[in-house]
Amino acid sequence: MYSFKNDYSEGAHPRILEALINANLTQNDGYGLDGHSENARELIRKAVGQADADVHFISGGTQTNLLAIASALRPYQAAVCAHTGHINVHETGAIEGTGHKVLAIRSADGKLTPAMVDGCVREHTDEHMVQPKLVYISDSTEVGTVYTKEELAALYHYCRQHDLFLFLDGARLGAALTAKGNDLTLPDIAALTDMFYIGGTKNGALFGEALVILNPELKKDFRYMTKNRGAMLAKGFVAGIQFEELFSDDLYFELATHANEMAGILKEGIRALGYPFHSDSPTNQQFVILPDDLVAKLEEQYRFETSGKPDGSHTVIRLVTSWATPEKAVREFLDTLKKLTDPARM
Amino acid sequence: MYSFKNDYSEGAHPRILEALINANLTQNDGYGLDGHSENARELIRKAVGQADADVHFISGGTQTNLLAIASALRPYQAAVCAHTGHINVHETGAIEGTGHKVLAIRSADGKLTPAMVDGCVREHTDEHMVQPKLVYISDSTEVGTVYTKEELAALYHYCRQHDLFLFLDGARLGAALTAKGNDLTLPDIAALTDMFYIGGTKNGALFGEALVILNPELKKDFRYMTKNRGAMLAKGFVAGIQFEELFSDDLYFELATHANEMAGILKEGIRALGYPFHSDSPTNQQFVILPDDLVAKLEEQYRFETSGKPDGSHTVIRLVTSWATPEKAVREFLDTLKKLTDPARM
Amino acid sequence: MYSFKNDYSEGAHPRILEALINANLTQNDGYGLDGHSENARELIRKAVGQADADVHFISGGTQTNLLAIASALRPYQAAVCAHTGHINVHETGAIEGTGHKVLAIRSADGKLTPAMVDGCVREHTDEHMVQPKLVYISDSTEVGTVYTKEELAALYHYCRQHDLFLFLDGARLGAALTAKGNDLTLPDIAALTDMFYIGGTKNGALFGEALVILNPELKKDFRYMTKNRGAMLAKGFVAGIQFEELFSDDLYFELATHANEMAGILKEGIRALGYPFHSDSPTNQQFVILPDDLVAKLEEQYRFETSGKPDGSHTVIRLVTSWATPEKAVREFLDTLKKLTDPARM
Amino acid sequence: MYSFKNDYSEGAHPRILEALINANLTQNDGYGLDGHSENARELIRKAVGQADADVHFISGGTQTNLLAIASALRPYQAAVCAHTGHINVHETGAIEGTGHKVLAIRSADGKLTPAMVDGCVREHTDEHMVQPKLVYISDSTEVGTVYTKEELAALYHYCRQHDLFLFLDGARLGAALTAKGNDLTLPDIAALTDMFYIGGTKNGALFGEALVILNPELKKDFRYMTKNRGAMLAKGFVAGIQFEELFSDDLYFELATHANEMAGILKEGIRALGYPFHSDSPTNQQFVILPDDLVAKLEEQYRFETSGKPDGSHTVIRLVTSWATPEKAVREFLDTLKKLTDPARM
Repeated sequence: MYSFKNDYSEGAHPRILEALINANLTQNDGYGLDGHSENARELIRKAVGQADADVHFISGGTQTNLLAIASALRPYQAAVCAHTGHINVHETGAIEGTGHKVLAIRSADGKLTPAMVDGCVREHTDEHMVQPKLVYISDSTEVGTVYTKEELAALYHYCRQHDLFLFLDGARLGAALTAKGNDLTLPDIAALTDMFYIGGTKNGALFGEALVILNPELKKDFRYMTKNRGAMLAKGFVAGIQFEELFSDDLYFELATHANEMAGILKEGIRALGYPFHSDSPTNQQFVILPDDLVAKLEEQYRFETSGKPDGSHTVIRLVTSWATPEKAVREFLDTLKKLTDPARM
Repeated sequence: MYSFKNDYSEGAHPRILEALINANLTQNDGYGLDGHSENARELIRKAVGQADADVHFISGGTQTNLLAIASALRPYQAAVCAHTGHINVHETGAIEGTGHKVLAIRSADGKLTPAMVDGCVREHTDEHMVQPKLVYISDSTEVGTVYTKEELAALYHYCRQHDLFLFLDGARLGAALTAKGNDLTLPDIAALTDMFYIGGTKNGALFGEALVILNPELKKDFRYMTKNRGAMLAKGFVAGIQFEELFSDDLYFELATHANEMAGILKEGIRALGYPFHSDSPTNQQFVILPDDLVAKLEEQYRFETSGKPDGSHTVIRLVTSWATPEKAVREFLDTLKKLTDPARM
Repeated sequence: MYSFKNDYSEGAHPRILEALINANLTQNDGYGLDGHSENARELIRKAVGQADADVHFISGGTQTNLLAIASALRPYQAAVCAHTGHINVHETGAIEGTGHKVLAIRSADGKLTPAMVDGCVREHTDEHMVQPKLVYISDSTEVGTVYTKEELAALYHYCRQHDLFLFLDGARLGAALTAKGNDLTLPDIAALTDMFYIGGTKNGALFGEALVILNPELKKDFRYMTKNRGAMLAKGFVAGIQFEELFSDDLYFELATHANEMAGILKEGIRALGYPFHSDSPTNQQFVILPDDLVAKLEEQYRFETSGKPDGSHTVIRLVTSWATPEKAVREFLDTLKKLTDPARM
Repeated sequence: MYSFKNDYSEGAHPRILEALINANLTQNDGYGLDGHSENARELIRKAVGQADADVHFISGGTQTNLLAIASALRPYQAAVCAHTGHINVHETGAIEGTGHKVLAIRSADGKLTPAMVDGCVREHTDEHMVQPKLVYISDSTEVGTVYTKEELAALYHYCRQHDLFLFLDGARLGAALTAKGNDLTLPDIAALTDMFYIGGTKNGALFGEALVILNPELKKDFRYMTKNRGAMLAKGFVAGIQFEELFSDDLYFELATHANEMAGILKEGIRALGYPFHSDSPTNQQFVILPDDLVAKLEEQYRFETSGKPDGSHTVIRLVTSWATPEKAVREFLDTLKKLTDPARM
């Protein structure tokens, strides 16, 4: 049964596996101090256009978020995010586990604006309340939307003015940067955040995220922090080799482009059948509102997550494509959906 | 320059890579809920002889230690270990980072005895002091030694009597169980601890440790704990596939046996040259005491760690072999050492 | 300038000071193991009607909350509360500082119902989300309202059914239990919660809260926990003596009754002048909605907190009375307000 | 039965109680923002000779230690102390509870030297180990000894050179500064540490310690930190009034002088009877080595703590005097000891 549950159902892109095989028996130093990791860091520094950026490879997204945020904040400081933010909902209290409150702001499209952050900042006036100090955003967001350059610049400007750090969770950054309508580049993101990460797990790697630290204040002793939280991999080179391959040429963007294209076919086909979407996503996650009975029938043939019920008779389903999704699977899904759709509807 | 720095300098055993390649494009559920992981868990349950054991795959040793210990203890409870214990010295305060004191007991051979633990327990008499609640041991230890069945049974018996958990760090468990003189088996260890882990990173995997929880008290909600600390891998199947391969037949033990054999050749050869050892290790770590000038010359041709100075003119060097160490490298090292050794010495 | 800012502006009720003076030079054991503390614990056990209750004296409310909650929860578990809950807003992330997420539910009157908690519980379905485990309520609430016996019983029943702990913050419990319309007693509260505290700081003590633990699961090693968080007072008897006095006869309730009566006079007088209230409080906190210019004039003669703006031209002011508030001060405030009020209004 | 168990067996010095009574019904702002607290801070700034010092009143010693240390350190940093240090032994893992390792160095007299700290610093070479960042000392120490000006200056100089903070636990600072042989003053201590605290609980207050922060790096947002750990007292003025009284004239030093004098009489008398001391203490704690049978007889008439057994037939007893110890009690103790002593011994 084909799965649209997520973008981490398959292993790694074949080129990455090949790179791992080629390097397999050559000895490397441990803990990310090897040549592959250094080369991968250098490739990323070039790709983001910041020769001084610090780059750290971490095994997964939640770990990257908790390390980055715990390293940036003092004990009484808080992270601000959209209520849909991954750190708020889907990390089992990992940020609170490091001692920090997450201040969630209701957001219709999964994004934050300066005005929304400002409301939160103004509410926190003295030492009886936490001190908002870091703004967490995701691009693409948890509902598939993306930031424009103007939006990100406005947010970063606000953060600079109010002495806040801006941290961008890029678990699906590839999908964001290759989305229709996106006008941001990696160098833009590096110029408009204090730190961000480039997700590998959801874009063709076996595992691994590349945290990029731009703000010098946040760079100090990050390797100590990493080890302290159990996040330093002994065979760090295994992550390094993967990012070396992803950034040796445009592989990272090619993989994301494919995922978005497959999602685009889904979106167009579903829209043609007349079904509404929960969010207007140009990326590899599509949130479709379907009648409950149709969802039940689809579940007999496909695997996917559901994501809430807008009313008593409808369900939002989430369809996720990846670098590995074959066009055939997407077309077959649309055929199935068409067959299950009442002809009167169209 | 050949490296004896550690047992995680190379990638994975070729059979593991092959298994990853074969499974690469088949879709799997995320977060370790896939068939490979379940199969690997089942294989490990059989290997340890406990059908009810819980098995969790974690990316590295420090993370496994901190998860296991933080999950077992209440805030005011402490872990007891040898002063050489990895959690005491080489984890950048990861255990304290979860809020727990590490009570270190001086140990000449890296091992703990009931008497040593008892001294610590007796010193902690009331609520003004931490409450010792978990005993942490390593097998093989950080200085290469191993526990006998009698020693482990005595420690476990003591822990049972005093309501303490016994946790065994098996980062190098393969090396311990295949060491000359070892009389412990995996089922013994499962019967004589509350939880332990089977190290993959240092025995042929790209990464990964298999935490085995025996005591029912410690099983509850461990997946919540794992996610809370950022340790749940999205592509959990990548760890599952590796342990599936390591435990499909005796691969796990074959790899460790090889590492020990290579270390045995080193040990014999070095002893024949008349150099003393810092500890009597039957496993893949050898700690040799050499004159400082000799160490300097060796460093021109080999890479290895040093581990303290017993006096003003000598240094302890650590030589580590692995599943990937070629016998040729070992023989050449001995030849080099012989050439550098004053003939008068022998 | 008279202050209605809070109920902790003055020292202690004279009888408490006298008790401290009388006991001053008699030697006591430290850390709450003295006769006064034991006697106070016994008096409280009798007052709550539970001979097995554990009672601990803690110096303040935030500390009591964090100790109680951190002691009850495992690392991935969360506390559920109203969005107005003290732990959510006014404790500078103290609960998160112990590693636990606070799940805030929007509440119009500062209270929680089983349906509200159930919505939160149902949303948290698996190990990718925190596990709601403790329900935190306040009585009286942060907006001055009180629970009825039926409401508390329903909530406790829900918690029992869903394996949740119910913890009641009684910083202003005296005010709640002596409020007009209240039908709860101390024994009721002890029968319908897993733990709660009896606030002393805001009801006539120099400092001190009495945490009462009913559920045996929550009793174990609480003194270890207390010391671990720096909350164990060397001169614990200073707290014991105060609670001995408060519970020797009905002093605790007399003091709260006075505070409520003073607030009742304010409420009646303000209502007579035609001003609306932000919440319908029968206790010693009154939240009044006044025109901004009137607030500005009042601030020239009185001290009080403001608590948000319902619209562009009005402000909510909070008036708090205490055991020490003279009726004269209350009458004068009403006179002032009357003079400042446009006669046309009434 | 008279108790020499500790210096916190009695309430407060009568002048302090009187000050509390006098101020009792005057309204004050909460949370230490009142006039008494401000006046007390100003008196302490004058007494320590640093107009810019930040002063915070905290309810107890463990809480002060954990606040100060947690505020100063980043997550992977550690505190260095003597193995006898209060934070290492008698705070139930409070420092580890904030996430930080305590690195304990064996010390014969409870004090640290630059050489001792340097050994610890040199051992911690990279990110696999914690980073020593704060040196914790006590004056007087846990075994009653005191630092000389030369010793403290050397330690501070070492800390400055190695970018370490020096924090002095002054739970018994009064006893240290009034001890025979002491050459340190409050201004010296303020000039030779980054922060320290002046203990009130053990020197005549009902409770309270005054944390003095000298290093500007450590001052930022300390009130947030205080509230975050539940350490901010609503009636902060109760602490302020007490320190106002202690530092209005030389009361603080007079009380400590008395305690030391009483201990001096004990010391002289015991020495005359021929009993040896476990440490050479010029302060209000005396550690005496007595035969076990004598200890048993003394326990029938006096209360005191024991502190280990130097051999199979002797016990160390700790005798503590305080501001409230009557000379009569001390003389009677000596008489009793004399009577219990075998005449042949003297």
